[in-house]
Amino acid sequence: MAQRHLDSLTKPAGSLGRLEEIAIRLALVSGRAPRVEQPVVFTFAADHGVAAEGVSAYPQVVTAQMVENFLAGGAAINVLARQAGARVIVADFGVIAPAPQGGGLVDCAVARGTSNFAQGPAMSRAQALIAIERGAALAEAAITGGADLLITGEMGIGNTTAASAVTAVVTSADPTRVTGRGTGVDAAGWQRKVAVVRRALEINRPDARDGLDVLARVGGFEIGGLVGVILAGAAHRVPVVLDGFIAGASALVATRLAPSVREVVFAAHRSAEPGHALALTHLGLEPYLDLELRLGEGTGGVLFIHLARAAALLYTEMATFKSAGVTGRVGP
Amino acid sequence: MAQRHLDSLTKPAGSLGRLEEIAIRLALVSGRAPRVEQPVVFTFAADHGVAAEGVSAYPQVVTAQMVENFLAGGAAINVLARQAGARVIVADFGVIAPAPQGGGLVDCAVARGTSNFAQGPAMSRAQALIAIERGAALAEAAITGGADLLITGEMGIGNTTAASAVTAVVTSADPTRVTGRGTGVDAAGWQRKVAVVRRALEINRPDARDGLDVLARVGGFEIGGLVGVILAGAAHRVPVVLDGFIAGASALVATRLAPSVREVVFAAHRSAEPGHALALTHLGLEPYLDLELRLGEGTGGVLFIHLARAAALLYTEMATFKSAGVTGRVGP
Repeated sequence: MAQRHLDSLTKPAGSLGRLEEIAIRLALVSGRAPRVEQPVVFTFAADHGVAAEGVSAYPQVVTAQMVENFLAGGAAINVLARQAGARVIVADFGVIAPAPQGGGLVDCAVARGTSNFAQGPAMSRAQALIAIERGAALAEAAITGGADLLITGEMGIGNTTAASAVTAVVTSADPTRVTGRGTGVDAAGWQRKVAVVRRALEINRPDARDGLDVLARVGGFEIGGLVGVILAGAAHRVPVVLDGFIAGASALVATRLAPSVREVVFAAHRSAEPGHALALTHLGLEPYLDLELRLGEGTGGVLFIHLARAAALLYTEMATFKSAGVTGRVGP
Repeated sequence: MAQRHLDSLTKPAGSLGRLEEIAIRLALVSGRAPRVEQPVVFTFAADHGVAAEGVSAYPQVVTAQMVENFLAGGAAINVLARQAGARVIVADFGVIAPAPQGGGLVDCAVARGTSNFAQGPAMSRAQALIAIERGAALAEAAITGGADLLITGEMGIGNTTAASAVTAVVTSADPTRVTGRGTGVDAAGWQRKVAVVRRALEINRPDARDGLDVLARVGGFEIGGLVGVILAGAAHRVPVVLDGFIAGASALVATRLAPSVREVVFAAHRSAEPGHALALTHLGLEPYLDLELRLGEGTGGVLFIHLARAAALLYTEMATFKSAGVTGRVGP
């Protein structure tokens, strides 16, 4: 149906390549002509106890400072969201030094940072559930308000270590294959990060079949929040855009809770983090952009809005061969 | 200088990947902070005598019909340019059945289609020069009007055959490696196309070191027009975005006329046409999008506007570590 419409438009069949795939998938998810008019970015922030292991190039206080930057509109995600006409919802899922309330910050804090999962579980199972519920509630409110594309974003010093651990568990990959340089640790820092992930898996022994268990043992509060956003998108048939490595880890958890998640998620880009490609392969997703981004916040996801909107506009605004009086192809 | 500014912004150094490369290149070309406020798309149309060899899946009349479609605003390039806030300049460089003048069509017609280059030169050397001059004049007028990004686009039944021949000459590649399915010929059509390119090179023996000779013998009028746009961009230090295979062939010709062209051109995307990758390698360019597009018109080039604008806005609008009060990285 969507394919037949695309083939009636004034272009050789299939010549818009992956934009046609995006248009068809958007139509299949929503059950109507594709539309990208109210994209909403969920930039969830939280701190990670594992930062104490020296796994990041930046001090933990940067999480809260970046939240202030988000609220002031000076971060990369603000600039890119303004360009793309997207609303940014910044939520505190558990920052240690919280930004002053007000200024648009949504309070979803589960606790003041997770526990250090190199020594025990990051959070309780109840806390994992609360994080998911709060993320889902925010997404559902946005959907009620008309959101037609949900973009996953995050900030949290230490959260690539959590994403590495989650990805290692769910994809059964060795920690060396899913651990990257994050915000830019050196070689020694990378070795330390791999060792921390390995230790976290040995100590916590997360059950890969149980998404909530994985999240509780080696995840993070903002990861839980994004799991909620993804589940809400799947439940309400609103397309969800995965940003980078942390969003990918959230999607791995979400698919363990609801396999139908795969139908609604789009991989915006391939991050420079090595574990991201593994996560996408596991999810059966092929990313649309490959720009060596490794910032997070939702930045790659917001860049994808332009492609999704292009696909939707081509679908709805292009003339057909018939309407434009253009002759079709010769022969078969 | 541009690099130092990028590293002062609130993000880990290098974490915006190839967007940072775009920002730096835009700054280097223009000699000022990157800016993408007035992008202009040049969609040049012309017919090709070689269409008589049965190298296209569409009849030749489609060139003129699509020009009408461009003027009516129903083609893919119109939809995507509206989305990206870009002006489209549609020019007739030599369509056989010309669209009625008016409606915004710019008359740059060199002749009513090229000659069949499977039998002799496509055009005279004088005609090649006229096509280049008219393209350059259009670009210069746009630059005077404030254009800060020039996007190359085209339409012409048979023009992938011309682009294949040009690419084979300049890159010294065998015709089988530079010839693709164009708008969708079948296997027999592809064999025919390869044979036509081979014959064209044997009969015309273009001098690969002489861009004008290559253009005259196996090129096309719209290709010549785009060579002019590219040369004007290089002369006035305004960045030029290459769309797909035909634009790539135009750039190959342009670099033979002025090697400094390489500094100002950006490869928007990697086309599904196999010869395009060869052309980009020869030009030393790595494309930013890989969406399996093979439509032309400037469509891939216009999608790149969003990335270029993102790069420019990040450069000019993001807060610095200092202005936002964010702590920098720990250690070296």
